[in-house]
This record gives sequence, C-alpha cells and structure tokens, in this order.
Amino acid sequence: MSEKPETLRDVGEIDMIRRLLERVSSADPSVVLGPGDDCALLAPNDEETVLTCDALVEGVHFDFGYFAPEDLGHRVVAANLSDLASMGAEPWAAVLSLAAPGDTPASTFERFYDGVAGISDRYGLAVVGGDVVGSRGGVFISVALLGKVPPGTAMTRAGAVPGDVLVLTGEIGLAQAGLDSLGGRVKLPHGSKKAAEERHLRPEPRVELGKRLRESGLVHACIDTSDSLAISFYHIATSQNLGVGVDGGNLPISAAASDAAAQLGLDVYEYALDGGEDFELLFAVAPEDADSAVRIIEETGCRGSVIGTITEHGEGVTLSVNGGRKPIPPKGFSHF
Amino acid sequence: MSEKPETLRDVGEIDMIRRLLERVSSADPSVVLGPGDDCALLAPNDEETVLTCDALVEGVHFDFGYFAPEDLGHRVVAANLSDLASMGAEPWAAVLSLAAPGDTPASTFERFYDGVAGISDRYGLAVVGGDVVGSRGGVFISVALLGKVPPGTAMTRAGAVPGDVLVLTGEIGLAQAGLDSLGGRVKLPHGSKKAAEERHLRPEPRVELGKRLRESGLVHACIDTSDSLAISFYHIATSQNLGVGVDGGNLPISAAASDAAAQLGLDVYEYALDGGEDFELLFAVAPEDADSAVRIIEETGCRGSVIGTITEHGEGVTLSVNGGRKPIPPKGFSHF
Repeated sequence: MSEKPETLRDVGEIDMIRRLLERVSSADPSVVLGPGDDCALLAPNDEETVLTCDALVEGVHFDFGYFAPEDLGHRVVAANLSDLASMGAEPWAAVLSLAAPGDTPASTFERFYDGVAGISDRYGLAVVGGDVVGSRGGVFISVALLGKVPPGTAMTRAGAVPGDVLVLTGEIGLAQAGLDSLGGRVKLPHGSKKAAEERHLRPEPRVELGKRLRESGLVHACIDTSDSLAISFYHIATSQNLGVGVDGGNLPISAAASDAAAQLGLDVYEYALDGGEDFELLFAVAPEDADSAVRIIEETGCRGSVIGTITEHGEGVTLSVNGGRKPIPPKGFSHF
Repeated sequence: MSEKPETLRDVGEIDMIRRLLERVSSADPSVVLGPGDDCALLAPNDEETVLTCDALVEGVHFDFGYFAPEDLGHRVVAANLSDLASMGAEPWAAVLSLAAPGDTPASTFERFYDGVAGISDRYGLAVVGGDVVGSRGGVFISVALLGKVPPGTAMTRAGAVPGDVLVLTGEIGLAQAGLDSLGGRVKLPHGSKKAAEERHLRPEPRVELGKRLRESGLVHACIDTSDSLAISFYHIATSQNLGVGVDGGNLPISAAASDAAAQLGLDVYEYALDGGEDFELLFAVAPEDADSAVRIIEETGCRGSVIGTITEHGEGVTLSVNGGRKPIPPKGFSHF
C-alpha cells in the first residue's frame, strides 16, 4: 500500500499560506510588516516605486512534464525581475497569488516557494504576502513586484531618437531552443542543450546590468526581450513613431538556436528574432556611446552587441542580411 | 446568420491589453508613468507602502451565470480595497493579471475593466498595469493593490489585549444570503433579496471608515471579515494567544441571513458567523472607548455593534446565546 501524499485540501488554505510564507520570511529592514496580516507594510523611502505584474498558466506557459516546481518558482520571479531590470530598478518586495486544484500535493507548493525564496534572496527581494486559492482548471500563478529607482532616472521604452544605435545583451534564441529541446522537437549537442534548457527553466534576469546601464546615464530607451526580440523592436521604435534597421550579421544568435532552426527547417533569423523569454536587455544609445555601453555589458561577463540603428518611421522594422533587406513582423509567443 | 463576437484571440494580447488599460487611464499626479511600459512608476512620498494581493477563480469564487463582467471587475478590486481599509490605508495603485481562454469575447474583458475603472475612480486608486494571458481552464483574475499610510499608524491584526471589546461595522451573513439567493437555494423577500445579492456582487469596502478609525487612534487591532466573522475572531485573538467571548444577542445578523438560515434549516448564528465576504471591519478597543468607536461608525451612516470581549487564551472563542455558551470553530469558505 503506497502512502498518499498530503494535498492542499488536507492542509487547508490558512495553514498552507502560513507554511509557504515561512519559507520566504526575510529580515529586510525596509519591511515594516511581513506576511500574515491583511496587508504588508513597507518603510518610506525617497525613491520612485516601480511596479509590475505577470501571470503564468499551466498548459500555456509551462508544463509540469519538464518544469520542476522549484524551477517554476524561480521562473515567475525571474520574469518579473527582468521587467525591473529593464528600468534599472532595485528589487524591493513581491506578493504572489497561487491557484491550484485541491488534490495538488502540498510538497509541490513548498518546492515552488523554495524556488521563489532562492532567487528572491539572491536579488534582495522581500516576499511579503501571498494568496493560495482553489482552481478547477490547473495551476495559475501571478506575481506582482515592487522595485525602487532614484526619481527621474528610470529607463523606459520611450526616448530613442533616429540615429541611435541598438545594443543587445547576451545571445538570442536560446530559450526557444531550450523549449524545443525540452519538448523533444530538436536534439541539441550536450553542451548547448544544457545552456538552452537552463535558459528556459531558470533564466537569470539582468538586474545588476540594468542598474549599471541606468547609472551610466547613456541609455535613451530600454526594454527586456521577454516577448521576443521582434516584438521588442516594435515597442521601442514603432510605438514612438520610429523604425529600426537591424544588421543580421551582428545578431548574437546562439549556437543552440542555429542548430534548432536547422533541424526544424526554419529560417534561423526568424527563429531567433521571434523566440521569446531570453530576458535580455535591448537599449538605444547615441552612436558615440555604443562602445562604452558594450564595455559596461562586458564588464559583467556578458556578451554585448550593436545590432542595429533607430531610423525614421517610414522605414519600418527591417533586417539586412546577405546584401538583401526584408521586413521583420512583430511576431512572438501568442497566448491565444 | 448571426455575427460571431470578436474574441480575445481575434484582438491579440498586445492590443487587448492596450484597449483595456485605456479604460482605466488616470491623471493621478502620484503616477509618474502609467500602463504601457515594462513597469509603472509611482512618485516618492513619505508614507509607508501598504501591499496586498488576491485572486479570483471562475467556478470557485464566481460563476458567470450570475456575475456580470462589470460586477466581477468591481468585486475583485473591492476585496483588495477591504484589506487596505482594515489597516486604515489610503488607496494608491493597482496592477491586474487576467487569464482567459482565447475564445472569450473581447467585450467580456472590456466590461470587466469598466467595473474595475468604476470602483477605482471612486476610491482614488490608479490602475497602472496589467497582464492578459491565455488559459485552458476558465478565467483567473489576480489583483495586487498598493496603499499609503502615515508611518507607524497602520491598524494591524495584532494588538488586542484582554478586556478589550470587539466592535463590528454593518451586518453579517448578508453576502452569504445573497449568494444562496443567487444560487436559487433560498427565496428572499424583495427588499432584502436586493440588498443581499448586491452585497455579494458589488460589496463596498469600508475605506473611509477604516481611515477614520485609524485617525481616531482608538483601535488596538483591526481585520476585515472577508473570510468569515468566525475566522476573523481567530486571526485577531487566537494567533495573539487570546480568546474571544461573543455575545450572541448583540450580533448584527442581517434579516436576509435569518431568513436564509431558516429556509435552509441551519442554525442562524452558525450561518451568519461562518458566511464570508461581508467585507465589514472587526476591531478591538478599550471598553471605555467603545461608545466613541460606535459613534465614528454611525457618523458614516453605518451600523456599529459591540459584539464581544477579548479574553485570556484558555477561554477559546465562544458564543453566549440564550443563557448557554458554546465554542465557535474557525469555519468559513474553503477553496479546496
């Protein structure tokens, strides 16, 4: 007779929340009152508050077939930290909502919170509240994150001007290749397989780099590439009535993405441009500041690439490759 | 041939978010940057930040059979505002996450946001961000709310001492009777039916009253009765190693709850004590301040009742009624 695991229903809502929040209790001096009351209380400070939220849905954003609960906890916090990173903000506090069927093992949620606690601790993020509720249709996770930034200094999506160059951190297409490897659609060589799958399961947000870029004062506009690089171009340019000219030869396409695209018979540029969730930073600087910006990136041990130029609006978003030029449509992951 | 309604899938994620957030755009001077970027930015201030979150799940917390989308939008914000009210905080900013199947009509979400916008405007809450994602299993809604409160003045669940009296705003069992009426389990007379159903569908958080109670400086501990009055007793007393003696004769049980309990063959006290989501405030004050506290409540046009006393721990949570005394278990709505 095998022992049945303790479920969320066995533990009950109040005790489950208590158990989970014990795992993330923090001694952060900016937290006046942590989890356990109707609300949390955070100490006053003289900075701007940066606020973002994100939701993850089982069967849409993740699958427990390859996502360990710890990785999922890491992942949902990482995605939100990446939004803070794109503004150059300092992580501050988080609240989480979890919905799950009553027969979900309690240990699944404890492991999820261990993942949340791990990344939160490393980035100085205090988890100050949470909600656990029932669900009839799978697991749903929502996180809201607060950050801090000195007034008037946050990097935003607006601010690029024609002639600016676009700089990108890291490599692209890595998370997409990791997802295709985890799903068994491609077979990657041992080394790049691990890096690609890790990028999908446990991405590291560019928090420190975002802060350094903000402090440099060089950045005109910044965004993270969570949806896809193609969509990021539109957010940073089209919405400001500007275009983008991308130099295909300078795109830092990961070896894993090249491999995966070839195996799937897809165009490697499309594969890398449309693949989301790399959580890199894309930003605009004046051309004379490009070298300094790349140096700031490289000082953190990360690759930095100048990948294109901000143009006038009429020129759209285009990719120059092998002497030709073609439009880049704003494609990425669609939830519907 | 009937025209097919436009769905979330037709509109797409980015345009849907844009359309929804246009409905809640606010000119709040404390919002430095509203929706549309990776994060929102809020101006510095010298108060403590109050933070809470809450999730609502289709089929668990609500049913589109009787919940109009506008009411649902109202409802999810009201529940979170009630948490701010229990601390005496001023509403500030909110972010929402929505997960829904791709074939959900776009108008459902626009109407939901109209409900969000209505209550947010009335309470001075700026909706500064949101996320719309796909779902395979019904609609999930998650809200995180920020409030502000002068440092050191927030009312919390901790702080009651033996001898304190417990004061309750409004009437209890109303939302439960409304839910049972909406579900067709009871038949209420016309007048109380409307009030009860309205309380379930469009509860009004006690924000102004919470602020006045905080400013009075009289309150030792405060909680909202969202889970149930029975559970609120435990949060405000048992977790502080205290007991509660409730005087059944003074409980402000709504007429609708009395009617509904009788029709269902249930004990009226249990029905009213265990029914959640009335969103009233329960708080502890010194006995000599009880009259002043009730007066503050009544000045806002609300009923105020002294319903019991904080006792030593060994005495548990008990109800005195008809000369007898029995324990009140911490029962309320269970999600699992």
